[in-house]
Amino acid sequence: MEREFITWLRGRLPPHPLLRLGPGDDAAVLNLADSTQCVLTVDMLTDGVDFKLTEIDPRHAGRKALAANLSDLAAMAARPLAGVIALCLPQRGGLDLAVALYEGMLPLAEQYNLAVAGGDTNSWDGPLVVSITLLGEATDRGPLRRGGARPGDRIVVTGAFGGSILGRHLDFEPRVLEALELHANYELHAGIDVSDGLSLDLSHIVEESGCGAAVNTAAVPVADDARRLAERLADGSTPLEHALSDGEDFELILAVPPDDARRMLAEQPLDVPLTDIGEFIVEPGLWQTNPRGDRRPLPPRGWEHSLK
Amino acid sequence: MEREFITWLRGRLPPHPLLRLGPGDDAAVLNLADSTQCVLTVDMLTDGVDFKLTEIDPRHAGRKALAANLSDLAAMAARPLAGVIALCLPQRGGLDLAVALYEGMLPLAEQYNLAVAGGDTNSWDGPLVVSITLLGEATDRGPLRRGGARPGDRIVVTGAFGGSILGRHLDFEPRVLEALELHANYELHAGIDVSDGLSLDLSHIVEESGCGAAVNTAAVPVADDARRLAERLADGSTPLEHALSDGEDFELILAVPPDDARRMLAEQPLDVPLTDIGEFIVEPGLWQTNPRGDRRPLPPRGWEHSLK
Repeated sequence: MEREFITWLRGRLPPHPLLRLGPGDDAAVLNLADSTQCVLTVDMLTDGVDFKLTEIDPRHAGRKALAANLSDLAAMAARPLAGVIALCLPQRGGLDLAVALYEGMLPLAEQYNLAVAGGDTNSWDGPLVVSITLLGEATDRGPLRRGGARPGDRIVVTGAFGGSILGRHLDFEPRVLEALELHANYELHAGIDVSDGLSLDLSHIVEESGCGAAVNTAAVPVADDARRLAERLADGSTPLEHALSDGEDFELILAVPPDDARRMLAEQPLDVPLTDIGEFIVEPGLWQTNPRGDRRPLPPRGWEHSLK
Repeated sequence: MEREFITWLRGRLPPHPLLRLGPGDDAAVLNLADSTQCVLTVDMLTDGVDFKLTEIDPRHAGRKALAANLSDLAAMAARPLAGVIALCLPQRGGLDLAVALYEGMLPLAEQYNLAVAGGDTNSWDGPLVVSITLLGEATDRGPLRRGGARPGDRIVVTGAFGGSILGRHLDFEPRVLEALELHANYELHAGIDVSDGLSLDLSHIVEESGCGAAVNTAAVPVADDARRLAERLADGSTPLEHALSDGEDFELILAVPPDDARRMLAEQPLDVPLTDIGEFIVEPGLWQTNPRGDRRPLPPRGWEHSLK
């Protein structure tokens, strides 16, 4: 019963200075007096596509759903403010499932000081659907966008890539604090989080920026998971190919002017490594280069929803 | 293909003064400098539960999804600002379906000056899921809440109730402008929109307000649709019972202090009729009264998602 669930949730939510009215009314009421430039993002995850409830603890599904949304705020270098959570639950076991999902989400919400403002809880005879909408605020430096990369900017990434399906896609840390710290201390021209795949998400930056990118593939940080996955699948795909196309790494790709990139890489200000993997260039499209300077096309690969 | 769809959408969306960055990035960027008290609401609709795509034009499904969300803003007496739309589409015909849904939503968004800020478009081998999140702003009089009804307040409703399944549940007009006009010109203590059912939604007001309500059932405005439905079903349920429990009327229930209620009913300031159907009382729960003044319990009935 929806009322029963809201009662449970109200008892479970800590007070939040932003929240004038939380779950239980037709809408939540937020005090946004100090936030002039807000960002709004929504991400929908479904059982069978983004996770498999037959294989994982539903707490991990809840955590992933919220973490993936927080990663979109990180991509904008925005501070999390508030979120609303819509669930479509299978009728059988739906209430227990809703509680487990929130038990996965609430610690992450608290960690990032996110006000869980409300939601919508439905049931049907289909698989679980989780749709989370987050409101964040840009800092004084403005939001980080996809469309600002300029030829000559370095391509800088956080962390390592590939093989996230072996577990990292569930327990990754969204790079919210990392994005805020970098945005505050270095000039960043563009950014995106890697949800679909390193090469595919990089292609989104170059499309929006009207430039191209040359990736030094030898420099791409390949995750141990990518090596393990290549070994396990043994289908001829290399660890590097996994790194370039697997997706759900939820690391950042940044366009950084050369001087700031040099400083950033020397200072390594984060707990996670920063790596220079190439350069934004005038010529459109994605290119891969090798140490000898040869250049050939890099096909953007990754997860795409097929719509026909 | 998601990019193809976003390209179509960007070409279709009019510019909006609130929108610094629209669909296509990791999040939309909104200028909320003038909005200090915002409301945030989400509503998820699914094929088979909220509409049947085998029976209706998908434009109507899109319109309903947005209208139901706008009705939640109406319930708060809030002005619509911006929205994000998440879709989970069946793989076969998903792109055409997405376009048709938006073709149903966009005219309504323009009508209410709502910025369509972005969304998320997914596909799966399941039925259509539409999740819409709206951001609105409260007026200077603050948001209208469920919890403010006081004993002695009159129960005032807009429009008529029952039988919306015969068609009104698809083409209703959300009472956004009506709520804003009433909130500006009369004192309102509480409000809700009737999505689940007149008696069930009234029970939400009394629960949140810590009071009860006595409904003069003879005064409840029964829609012609309620009479037609009762006749058609011929299952013994009366038109009044349909009016009290069918739901999806998307009319407003308001708690209005007696003097303002008298004035409101005499002035009838809206195109839609306002009707006094009873009184909020000290004694908890819902009650029905008849012209002789007899009082007996009124069971709150309507649509509830069953979670087990």
